[in-house]
Amino acid sequence: MEFAQTPEPPYTAVIFTSLRTDGDDGYAETSARMAELAARQPGLLGIESARDGLGITVAYFRDEASARSWKQVTEHREAQRLGRDRWYRAYRVRVATVTREYGWERP
Amino acid sequence: MEFAQTPEPPYTAVIFTSLRTDGDDGYAETSARMAELAARQPGLLGIESARDGLGITVAYFRDEASARSWKQVTEHREAQRLGRDRWYRAYRVRVATVTREYGWERP
Repeated sequence: MEFAQTPEPPYTAVIFTSLRTDGDDGYAETSARMAELAARQPGLLGIESARDGLGITVAYFRDEASARSWKQVTEHREAQRLGRDRWYRAYRVRVATVTREYGWERP
Repeated sequence: MEFAQTPEPPYTAVIFTSLRTDGDDGYAETSARMAELAARQPGLLGIESARDGLGITVAYFRDEASARSWKQVTEHREAQRLGRDRWYRAYRVRVATVTREYGWERP
């Protein structure tokens, strides 16, 4: 797992937090397919993801319009529907504009 | 683990992604202390956190000034120094303004 390589701000972050249902029920397969599809999405800069109990995925986009386009991709919309049917107990989506970024790496 | 209870946007999100060193070396204790300290920080709205390999913590604040105040708290600054000394291989901080939020919960 790596950091997303993001450019100088501003850019858009979509923070998706979720609580899962029990069991896999096709989740891993669809999740991998969505990662593959997202990687080809114009304007997607990178994705960071972690789960222990609460899941947090942050998807970074060039701008809000790119984020909105990804939300509307037909196969992704179908995955969102399956998410509500099967995989999630609850989720929240927060769309944000990144204004500052800095980092540190062990020398 | 629960969702942060955040108000109507706009508000500020600080997205902290990190890669840990091996071992605990006092991390759990300081981490708990920082959560306790943060809970009393004016303007902090909530925190969401997950780790598997990559760690992602998102702290939500009323505004950028509140986020900056928390960064400057003496005991927190000391924890940041220890973080670079001991606990992290690398981290990134992204400060963002949340402009939209929506959610879903299983009926």
